[in-house]
Amino acid sequence: MRWARFDANGTPTYAIVEGETLLPVRGSPLTGQWEKTGEKRALAQAKLLVPNVPPTFYACGMNYPEHVKEVAAKIGQPVNLPSRPEIGYRANNALIAQNETIVIPKDATDKVQYEGELAVIIGKQCKHLTRENALDAVFGYSIGNDVSERTWQKADRTMWRSKNTDTFKPMGPWIETDVTLDDLITKVRLNGKELIAFPTNHMIFGVVDFLVETTKYLTLYPGDMMWMGTEGATADMKHGDVVEIEITGIGTLRNPVVRAG
Amino acid sequence: MRWARFDANGTPTYAIVEGETLLPVRGSPLTGQWEKTGEKRALAQAKLLVPNVPPTFYACGMNYPEHVKEVAAKIGQPVNLPSRPEIGYRANNALIAQNETIVIPKDATDKVQYEGELAVIIGKQCKHLTRENALDAVFGYSIGNDVSERTWQKADRTMWRSKNTDTFKPMGPWIETDVTLDDLITKVRLNGKELIAFPTNHMIFGVVDFLVETTKYLTLYPGDMMWMGTEGATADMKHGDVVEIEITGIGTLRNPVVRAG
Repeated sequence: MRWARFDANGTPTYAIVEGETLLPVRGSPLTGQWEKTGEKRALAQAKLLVPNVPPTFYACGMNYPEHVKEVAAKIGQPVNLPSRPEIGYRANNALIAQNETIVIPKDATDKVQYEGELAVIIGKQCKHLTRENALDAVFGYSIGNDVSERTWQKADRTMWRSKNTDTFKPMGPWIETDVTLDDLITKVRLNGKELIAFPTNHMIFGVVDFLVETTKYLTLYPGDMMWMGTEGATADMKHGDVVEIEITGIGTLRNPVVRAG
Repeated sequence: MRWARFDANGTPTYAIVEGETLLPVRGSPLTGQWEKTGEKRALAQAKLLVPNVPPTFYACGMNYPEHVKEVAAKIGQPVNLPSRPEIGYRANNALIAQNETIVIPKDATDKVQYEGELAVIIGKQCKHLTRENALDAVFGYSIGNDVSERTWQKADRTMWRSKNTDTFKPMGPWIETDVTLDDLITKVRLNGKELIAFPTNHMIFGVVDFLVETTKYLTLYPGDMMWMGTEGATADMKHGDVVEIEITGIGTLRNPVVRAG
């Protein structure tokens, strides 16, 4: 099942996506308490919202082997693959939805880059998950673009502006609940040109690894979200570009890019 | 004005604190839309909740000179005072309220330490704040205990479990809106014994510095929260201890400590 969130005359509303149609509901799929309103809307005419605003926004860095090697080469350090799953954080202020604009601040360098990522949305309050039941805690999957200003990422002690500047976290277009992780391919296109394609699940530590390790110490709540990192090299995005992240079986997240004047 | 949040038969409810009495309201002071219910409750009998659960939970590390020196000495590094305000993050899962128990996980070391901090709660959506208007964006001030497992803090790439293990972020007892920052003194007591007292506002970068710098890139929203760091050395807390953080003019945050069996 595919769940979008859209702007119904100013009210954020969940809807089931069936082909090109939205079927709005009352309630939220994340609480399990919802019912169809009976209404139908054309998907193409709806303003989609960020499909989930999390209580806590988790993210994995350095979770694909070629990406770790690329980063090490760029900063002139030896390759140091992580030895265990250590989760980090991103911030809700930076989230934007399908078709919303990534705004590069005036004083950013040209090193503003995409990162195509699988977003995991939690459906249950859970702690001490096991390898056997971890995926039962997942509500569904979406697509994130972990936009990063590389110069700030090197210069700053935290990732506050390199990764969390307003508009730097596009997410959507919706949440897909029926996914076979091993079948997914992530593709990144800039202005229609494919720059990378990689098997989404070829992570150093997978979704189950992160859920099991994290919930040894932390309770996860419905709506909590975990972005799983990206693979390979990334390229600069500039004013006028359009960036698309496709994950097969989920959809395509599309965002234009402008530089603030 | 002093705002608490308490459990009214299962419903989180805001209340004005007047002396030893709670005056519950409908609505939320953070939206500005509230009215007294006319009810009165004894503060001593109310179960206080975390007074604010933020959309984004910001925190400053390394923001008092003696604390930076202490940390440098402990890890054998030269003292390196920060040259600009760089905000970091904490996680909502770890928040607990007044009198709730800090639980040290079984596999934690003995190096579980308090950090007494001023918590700044934002009252308005804001960006590009100036030194002149920054404090107008603040709704009020509370007290945080940034509990930290020091061995994990050194060993892990992020602060996910060292600072964000469940129960590691006590906060409260309430939010005080009428505060003169320069008058505040932060005092930490372990089992009734005062271990440190310091002028709360003697920060390397103050509240205004962080609000101005952060909002160059980020929008802050009502309820967003910023913890301002701590001063000096910190000590270990062990099973059976009671830790209190007092900030004069705000109140005293009190939490017992247990080690998971």
